[in-house]
Amino acid sequence: MGKANDPDAADTITRIAQHLQSIGHPVLLDAESTPQIPNGDRCERSVLPQNADLLIAVGGDGTLLHAARLLADHEVPILGVNRGRMGFLVDVSPSHLDEIDAVLSGEFIADDRMLLTAEIHRGGEILSRGIALNDVVLHKWNTARMIDFETYIDGELANRHHSDGLIVATPTGSTAYAMSGGGPIMHPNLDAIALVPICPHTLSNRPLVISAESTIEITVHPSSLKQIRVSCDGQEDLGLVNEGRIMVRKSTRKVHLIHPPRYRYFGILRAKLRWGGTHFS
Amino acid sequence: MGKANDPDAADTITRIAQHLQSIGHPVLLDAESTPQIPNGDRCERSVLPQNADLLIAVGGDGTLLHAARLLADHEVPILGVNRGRMGFLVDVSPSHLDEIDAVLSGEFIADDRMLLTAEIHRGGEILSRGIALNDVVLHKWNTARMIDFETYIDGELANRHHSDGLIVATPTGSTAYAMSGGGPIMHPNLDAIALVPICPHTLSNRPLVISAESTIEITVHPSSLKQIRVSCDGQEDLGLVNEGRIMVRKSTRKVHLIHPPRYRYFGILRAKLRWGGTHFS
Amino acid sequence: MGKANDPDAADTITRIAQHLQSIGHPVLLDAESTPQIPNGDRCERSVLPQNADLLIAVGGDGTLLHAARLLADHEVPILGVNRGRMGFLVDVSPSHLDEIDAVLSGEFIADDRMLLTAEIHRGGEILSRGIALNDVVLHKWNTARMIDFETYIDGELANRHHSDGLIVATPTGSTAYAMSGGGPIMHPNLDAIALVPICPHTLSNRPLVISAESTIEITVHPSSLKQIRVSCDGQEDLGLVNEGRIMVRKSTRKVHLIHPPRYRYFGILRAKLRWGGTHFS
Amino acid sequence: MGKANDPDAADTITRIAQHLQSIGHPVLLDAESTPQIPNGDRCERSVLPQNADLLIAVGGDGTLLHAARLLADHEVPILGVNRGRMGFLVDVSPSHLDEIDAVLSGEFIADDRMLLTAEIHRGGEILSRGIALNDVVLHKWNTARMIDFETYIDGELANRHHSDGLIVATPTGSTAYAMSGGGPIMHPNLDAIALVPICPHTLSNRPLVISAESTIEITVHPSSLKQIRVSCDGQEDLGLVNEGRIMVRKSTRKVHLIHPPRYRYFGILRAKLRWGGTHFS
Repeated sequence: MGKANDPDAADTITRIAQHLQSIGHPVLLDAESTPQIPNGDRCERSVLPQNADLLIAVGGDGTLLHAARLLADHEVPILGVNRGRMGFLVDVSPSHLDEIDAVLSGEFIADDRMLLTAEIHRGGEILSRGIALNDVVLHKWNTARMIDFETYIDGELANRHHSDGLIVATPTGSTAYAMSGGGPIMHPNLDAIALVPICPHTLSNRPLVISAESTIEITVHPSSLKQIRVSCDGQEDLGLVNEGRIMVRKSTRKVHLIHPPRYRYFGILRAKLRWGGTHFS
Repeated sequence: MGKANDPDAADTITRIAQHLQSIGHPVLLDAESTPQIPNGDRCERSVLPQNADLLIAVGGDGTLLHAARLLADHEVPILGVNRGRMGFLVDVSPSHLDEIDAVLSGEFIADDRMLLTAEIHRGGEILSRGIALNDVVLHKWNTARMIDFETYIDGELANRHHSDGLIVATPTGSTAYAMSGGGPIMHPNLDAIALVPICPHTLSNRPLVISAESTIEITVHPSSLKQIRVSCDGQEDLGLVNEGRIMVRKSTRKVHLIHPPRYRYFGILRAKLRWGGTHFS
Repeated sequence: MGKANDPDAADTITRIAQHLQSIGHPVLLDAESTPQIPNGDRCERSVLPQNADLLIAVGGDGTLLHAARLLADHEVPILGVNRGRMGFLVDVSPSHLDEIDAVLSGEFIADDRMLLTAEIHRGGEILSRGIALNDVVLHKWNTARMIDFETYIDGELANRHHSDGLIVATPTGSTAYAMSGGGPIMHPNLDAIALVPICPHTLSNRPLVISAESTIEITVHPSSLKQIRVSCDGQEDLGLVNEGRIMVRKSTRKVHLIHPPRYRYFGILRAKLRWGGTHFS
Repeated sequence: MGKANDPDAADTITRIAQHLQSIGHPVLLDAESTPQIPNGDRCERSVLPQNADLLIAVGGDGTLLHAARLLADHEVPILGVNRGRMGFLVDVSPSHLDEIDAVLSGEFIADDRMLLTAEIHRGGEILSRGIALNDVVLHKWNTARMIDFETYIDGELANRHHSDGLIVATPTGSTAYAMSGGGPIMHPNLDAIALVPICPHTLSNRPLVISAESTIEITVHPSSLKQIRVSCDGQEDLGLVNEGRIMVRKSTRKVHLIHPPRYRYFGILRAKLRWGGTHFS
């Protein structure tokens, strides 16, 4: 599976598919993302999970986020292959496809990552729901003004917010949008969730890290009813909250990432954040 | 002039109007904001500036921002009266209306504040324009994703942005929305403009302070054409940018704030930001 | 036990001691901190832990930090009484000493908090060690320049630092010095440690939250050998690191805080950080 | 003049000196920094300014800071040559020494930069003084605790500080240490000074930008008398403040930087801060 309409991804998928076939592995191609590849069986994206033993996602971190939500209800692991530029999640380089061989022969690092579920409730009804590997984001909509809402952690009022929104991030998401909002980096093996306010009016309203066992409930102030929307991973839209409440929890499912044996979390962090380099002076 | 539909403001306006009449000053009331006040002449808000020697604005900083843009083309000074809670701009307390007498007898501190003009240009045409005392804000619209645009300072490319937007703030605006975005405080007598990125993807994309004589031009990346909107002081909407360019400059006009003699800029700053207090530990 | 040479603390201790004696509880007073109190037995601070069932610490958070390290090797719980201004850790008000009665009658909230141990190693030798409830801080010493060191998490290189230092904080410490350095708030029930760089040269060198089961090792660059010192809770000095390495781990001991029944973590957070209030505009 | 004991700098100096002599320019070498170069006249560093028409400084930004303070009382311009890695101030590459020819033939961009003077006063006496191109830094000394001091701007109390120190930065210094402390970038043509608190205890104690015409006075709280020291550009030490007051003002002198014609401020900023690149995701 790859990023749609991306010639580089399609080219890499072709090379991987031909290589895997040449060494005897059956290949199933996602019909949606890779229509231009001649060889291999194709299937609809929606039935891919139940027919695969391993999903190879080719593209950037966005492609892998999409794949991860697709696989949330299955136990199929994912291997991410980038298109020349390493991502946090897609760490196999297209110029080192031999790393796929190593993985298939059993040499790999398994890395299960937490998922979040987000639901918009009203009364006893669930209006919409979504799943996220990076973050559930509450953001202002159709307004230039700040929005008002409250957060409850395990039923206890945590904070009243007057801000541009809130990012509820997993450790995986801590190096994505949450970082732009000033959130901390969380190691993937940490069972925690970060709540990162976006442009909070109160300067002491700082990022908050809580146990991943906690339930987060967000209620909207009447003045902001039409002005708050929820999205998952910046890709899936749960719509306006209106009079509803947003419930965010750790999912009972996990994403099963697969890395080549040389994978080191901090190595990727240093490379992506250019910690080795010198940014100024 | 006061905040519309605010009983506290209306009450204070009545007290001020009666007091001023009792000591022989003619009073003209803004018809829009204070319909419920029995005494004094009324006029449309739009003709208020040309018929007044001093505008007394009663409400919060938002009311004064509105008044300031209304007066931008006139030389009428503004005195801000709060409704019990001091603002950065409305510093006369309703319990110290004698300070108004002092001001009318010539004891006051004059404090001219810079304004910004914002225009959306396309070809030779100006599609919309606005004026701001606090800030011109470029913000994302109808999308959960980051937007892409470029800033030019005096014709030179300054930066390519991948973020949630940009706040272009005056010194007056530096303690408003720009501060939520991580911008610095700028003293009002500084002839400078701050560019504060909102949730920038690149962590080193820090707030930038430039001379107020500079011209700022912002061009939108084609991928974000329908997703960027511009507002002034969070109150005036310049609409979608589309294929246009945004030009922001210092206005040739200034707002003429009037303060009571005891006014001290840092005193208000310490009180509003609770610098005297202890926020933690 | 109270803050030394503090008349307010001594007065509160006297009142508490007399009250406790009047209802039949034996009272033991710390000789060092409260020499001026006439009634009750006294003992040396060092033998206080083995002779007490409950330690009542009167003062600010600093006093409780001191008490917590004193009790680290014992199972004695601590109740913190403030001197009029609530702290994060000293939450019983001197004007509500009836809350102590409630605690003694069994109505309380038990709140075990993680401790950190810090050791300076050289070769197989431990040069010095300390224990911290808030934080272990690596700070520059006798220099105006930045210092250079490396952090290893569970043996893996995490980062090379060029900065003014590093704060290794518990959840308890996340609202103390670590917050001044830009660190996140961590809920006390989270089993995590934050590494917060102080004025890092590289802007992307952000606060990092890791599992409390991890071992942190810090090695000093030769150029900074005489310029790095380690302290615990800002109160206990481990001296210069020199050629040594600093090892920081979660202690096997915990501090047993006792709160009155009305205690709510987020309630204290909102009060201390003034989240309810409005800091600007 | 170059960085002392730096073989790369010495090699570049040799090449520049030989080239300049070959085209007829007399060359004077700083005896201190370049003892190993055989050709050209030498002189003491202290008399260099009065014998030169142009100072070519070879090294990093630190070398140029040193040269700038040396030249503060003279009108000699400075051209900065780096050793392979561009700095904010040393923008001529050793592989493009032809740019020096262009400069000598009159093709250059003149860029005057503000300097700060810092003085420690006690009574009518000046105990020590220094000059800075980047920053005057008030920093804690010999203590793990925060320090207490007050800032006055033009005689008006601005703030009471409980922090690790204060960075008073020029626009030139805004991209150096002040940036690590969270300060904004200031364009070099802005006549402004930034006050950047280091790890302030009060979260709303944000960087403050004031007019460069203002006088900054800092007084130390008695509890911190032995714990505050002042340095200029991180290179020059003014010693302990003790009972004194620190006065910081814009110098009447400027540094006259010379750039090759292709110089663009924002171009260097983008390159040094890697704004073009993508730091994460």
